[in-house]
Amino acid sequence: MASNKPPRTQPRVPKGFRDLTAEDVVARRRMIERVCQVYEAYGFQPLETPAIEYLDVLGKYLPEADQPDGGVFSWRYDDDEWVALRYDLTAPLSRYVAQNFQELGTPFRRYQTGPVWRQEKPGPGRFREFTQLDIDIVGAGGVLADAEVACVIADALEALGVPRGSYQVRMNHRKVLDGLLERAQVPPERQVRVLRALDKLDRVGPEGVRDLLGPGRTDPSGDVMEGAGLEPAQADVLLELLGAPEGARAGYLEVVRRLVADTTAGAAGLADMEELDRILDERGVGTDRVVFSASIVRGLAYYTGPVVEVALTFEVDGEAGRQPFGSVAGGGRYDGLVGRFLGQQVPATGASIGVDRLLAALKALGKLPELAGRCPVLVTTIDAGLRREYQAWAAELRAAGIPTELYVGSGGVAKQFKYADRRGFTVAVVAGGDEHAKGEVSVKDLRQGHELSRGITDRSAWLADLPGQVSVPRADLVATVRQFLDRYPAG
Amino acid sequence: MASNKPPRTQPRVPKGFRDLTAEDVVARRRMIERVCQVYEAYGFQPLETPAIEYLDVLGKYLPEADQPDGGVFSWRYDDDEWVALRYDLTAPLSRYVAQNFQELGTPFRRYQTGPVWRQEKPGPGRFREFTQLDIDIVGAGGVLADAEVACVIADALEALGVPRGSYQVRMNHRKVLDGLLERAQVPPERQVRVLRALDKLDRVGPEGVRDLLGPGRTDPSGDVMEGAGLEPAQADVLLELLGAPEGARAGYLEVVRRLVADTTAGAAGLADMEELDRILDERGVGTDRVVFSASIVRGLAYYTGPVVEVALTFEVDGEAGRQPFGSVAGGGRYDGLVGRFLGQQVPATGASIGVDRLLAALKALGKLPELAGRCPVLVTTIDAGLRREYQAWAAELRAAGIPTELYVGSGGVAKQFKYADRRGFTVAVVAGGDEHAKGEVSVKDLRQGHELSRGITDRSAWLADLPGQVSVPRADLVATVRQFLDRYPAG
Repeated sequence: MASNKPPRTQPRVPKGFRDLTAEDVVARRRMIERVCQVYEAYGFQPLETPAIEYLDVLGKYLPEADQPDGGVFSWRYDDDEWVALRYDLTAPLSRYVAQNFQELGTPFRRYQTGPVWRQEKPGPGRFREFTQLDIDIVGAGGVLADAEVACVIADALEALGVPRGSYQVRMNHRKVLDGLLERAQVPPERQVRVLRALDKLDRVGPEGVRDLLGPGRTDPSGDVMEGAGLEPAQADVLLELLGAPEGARAGYLEVVRRLVADTTAGAAGLADMEELDRILDERGVGTDRVVFSASIVRGLAYYTGPVVEVALTFEVDGEAGRQPFGSVAGGGRYDGLVGRFLGQQVPATGASIGVDRLLAALKALGKLPELAGRCPVLVTTIDAGLRREYQAWAAELRAAGIPTELYVGSGGVAKQFKYADRRGFTVAVVAGGDEHAKGEVSVKDLRQGHELSRGITDRSAWLADLPGQVSVPRADLVATVRQFLDRYPAG
Repeated sequence: MASNKPPRTQPRVPKGFRDLTAEDVVARRRMIERVCQVYEAYGFQPLETPAIEYLDVLGKYLPEADQPDGGVFSWRYDDDEWVALRYDLTAPLSRYVAQNFQELGTPFRRYQTGPVWRQEKPGPGRFREFTQLDIDIVGAGGVLADAEVACVIADALEALGVPRGSYQVRMNHRKVLDGLLERAQVPPERQVRVLRALDKLDRVGPEGVRDLLGPGRTDPSGDVMEGAGLEPAQADVLLELLGAPEGARAGYLEVVRRLVADTTAGAAGLADMEELDRILDERGVGTDRVVFSASIVRGLAYYTGPVVEVALTFEVDGEAGRQPFGSVAGGGRYDGLVGRFLGQQVPATGASIGVDRLLAALKALGKLPELAGRCPVLVTTIDAGLRREYQAWAAELRAAGIPTELYVGSGGVAKQFKYADRRGFTVAVVAGGDEHAKGEVSVKDLRQGHELSRGITDRSAWLADLPGQVSVPRADLVATVRQFLDRYPAG
C-alpha cells in the first residue's frame, strides 16, 4: 500500500544508555540523601561542576587511555579546542581547586554526585552513563586524611543498613606496588600489564594471576588474555605479597616489610601503611572494617599513595555460582593532579561510590531505602457536568495532605478504573449526577475491589453495592478517604 | 630561565559553563525538592532519561534549528549515527513514551529534572548547561490537562513562597495565532519572523512590535533587527489582538472571537480557550493567577495547542532600570511529538521550569530556601600524641547528632584557627598535653573570639583565658559544645 507519510523515527537510545523509572529514581535519591547526610556530618560540602571539560584538563588517566578513542566522548568545541564529557569527578575537582586555590581554605572537603560518561564496551549491568558519589579532601598530605576517607565510607555503608561484617574496606599503597615491581625487576613497559594482573586476584585466584603474570591465560569462556611474560621467579615475588594472610593488617605489613622495605618507593609506602594502621587502631577501627590487601591496585593512572577499595562480601548468584558481591567504591591519593595546573604540589585523597552498584547491593541485601508511597487517590471525572466538583474535591484532599490525582484523560468509567488499576491507586473518588443531587460522593477501596473490576464496562454496575465502596455526605469526603487509606498503613 | 618542566595545563571551563558551590547546590536542591513534593501531590512521578539521545530522535525543534549547528552539541557515535546532548526534557520524554507505550497507562504523568545543553551564544546569566524541571501529561487530549499543568506550576510557586500577585500564568493558543496569521494574510515564509516579533512585546512594547512586523528596528544598543516586511494594515490586525485588555481572560476571548473565529484554525483555538476559561472558573482560579495573552508565542517549534508562560511580575533592577523579573517557566501542548515515532497521534502537554531563573527570582524575593547549616564544629589536632583522643571526640560529637569535622591537614594552632575562621565554624575543640593530663578538654566559641584570632601565632596565647573558651572535664564535652551552639540558634 502506498503512503505519503514521512518514515517514522525509531524510538531508541544509544547503546550503553538507559532510562530510570520512578521506583529507581526514588530509591537512588533516598540512598544518595542518606550518604550525603553522613558526609555532611564529617564536614564535607557539596560542589557541582559542568558535564563538559576541556580534554587537556581531564588528562589521560583512564585504564583505556591507550585505546584510540581514549575511553571518553569528545568533540571539537566552537573555540576549536577539544572538549569531552567528564569520565569521573576527580579530574574536574582538581581543575576547580587549581582555579580557586587562593580562595579555598585547605584542607578542602567536598562531596559531589552526578553522572559520568565512558566510551567503554557496554554489557549487562555496564552502562556508558553512570552515577558517582565522591568525597575528597584536598590539601592534606598525611595519611590521617586517607583514614578519614576510608572510615567515612564505612560509616555511610552502615548508615544505609549494610551490617558490619558484610563489607570490607581494603587498602594498599601505590608505592608498595612500585617497590614490589622494582624488587621483582619488572621492566617499565610491562608494569601496567603486571598491575592489571594483580588487580584480577578476586576474579581469577592466585593461579590465574600466575598465568597472567607469565604466559597468559584462557578464560573458561574461551577468551584469551595475554600474559605479562615474567619469569616464574619474578611471579613468585609478586605472589608472595598477594599471599599475605587475608583480612589482617599485621600480616600485610610483615610481608611488605620483608619484601620491599629495601626499595626507596617501598620504604615510603610501608611507612605510610604503618602509620595508617596506627591511626585506625587509635580510632578503634579493627580488621572487621578496614583491612590491607596487596591485590588492591585501582585502574586509574593518577594515584600516588594509599589506594582503597570497598567490597561487599556477602554472596550473591553470579556467573560462576555464588560469589561475593564485590566492589562498590574505590579511590586513593592523587598528589599530582592539582599540581598539573599550579606547578606546586597539592596533596589530595578521596574515593568514589558507584551509585548503581551500591543500589544493586542494597536491593540484594533487602535494604533498599523505603520508597515514597505512590499517589494513593484518584478523583475520577466521569460526568462532565461535575467538573467543578471534581476539581474542588481533588484540591480539598491535597490541602488535607493527601496526594491526589485528577483524571484528566478521556473515556468513561471502565477506562478510568482500568487506569486506576494499572497505576495502583488505593482509593478512587467517584460521583455521578445522582450522588450529586443527594449531596453525596462515593469513595471506593480499589485494593479490596480490584479483582472484581476487570471486565466491568457498565457504570451502573459500579455504582451498585460493591465491596469497599460507600456513599457519604459531601462533607465527609476527606475523613472517609483517610479512613480507607488507613486500612493500608504500609502505603 | 630555561626549565625542563612540562608546560602547565590551564585550569578553565569551556565558555558557557560554570561551577556551583555549596550554597548554590544546597539552595537549588531544596527548591527542587519542594517543587517535586507539589508535583507528587498531583500524581506526577519521576523519570530520568540519558544525557545523550540520537539526533533524529531529538528532532529539529529549537528556535536556532535554522543555524548550521542547530543549537545542539552533537557528534558521531561509534555506531556511526549522530548523537547529541539533549536540549530539553520534552523530546526525550516523547521518545520514552513511544518506546514503552504498551506498558504505560495513560494519562501518564511524569516529572523530570536535570541538566540540558544548548550551543547558543553564552552571556551574563546565559549558560550552555542549565537545569530544567519539567512536568508533562501524555495521553490526555482535552484542555483539562492543560489547565492542570498551569495550576500545578502556580501551586509550586506559592509553595516556594512566591506570593499571589507576584506571578502570572499567561496562556495563549497556537491555533489562535495560526488563525491570526491567516486573517492577516501573512505568507508562510514570513510566519516564523512574525511570531518572533509578537513574542517580543514584553521587551520592545507595541510600537517596537509594529516596527518588527514592518520595516525592522534598531535597538537602543544599536543592534539592527530585521523586520517581517508586512504592510501596515496587516500589522494592524496582529496588533489589535495584542491590544486585548491586559490581565483579563474575557477581553482576550472577545477580541479573538472577533478577529479569528471565521478561520478554521482560529475557531478551534478559540473553542479550546473558551473551555479552558470555564475550567479555570470552575476551579476557582481567577485572573490573579492565570490570564490569557496573545503575545505568548513560545519559541519551540513543536507546540500545537495551548501554550503557557509563567512570569514573575515583581520588579528588579535590569538593563533599562526597574523592570518585571520576567519568565521562569514555559510550555504547551505538543500533540505531534510522540506520533513521530508511533504513527498514531498521542496528545501531550507540559511545562518546564528554568531552575536557575527561578532560583534567582527567589533570591530577589528574599525567599531562598533555608540553607543547611554549615558543619558547626572543628576538632583541632594540634598534638600528634593525642590523635586517638581527637578522633574519639569527633566520633562522640557526631554520634550525638552534631556534625563535626576533624582537622586532617598539617600545621599548628595558628594555621588550624585560620582555617576554622575561613570556613566559618562556630565551635572549636582544642586540647594539648596539659589539658589531657588533667582529664580536660577546651571548647572555644569561635564567633565570640574570632575578631581576636587574627594575627595570633602562639599557642600559649590561645590557651590563656580567651573570651568564650572554657576547659571542662572530658565527660562534659558534648554538653558543653551543645551549650555553645545553642548561643546561635539560627545555625
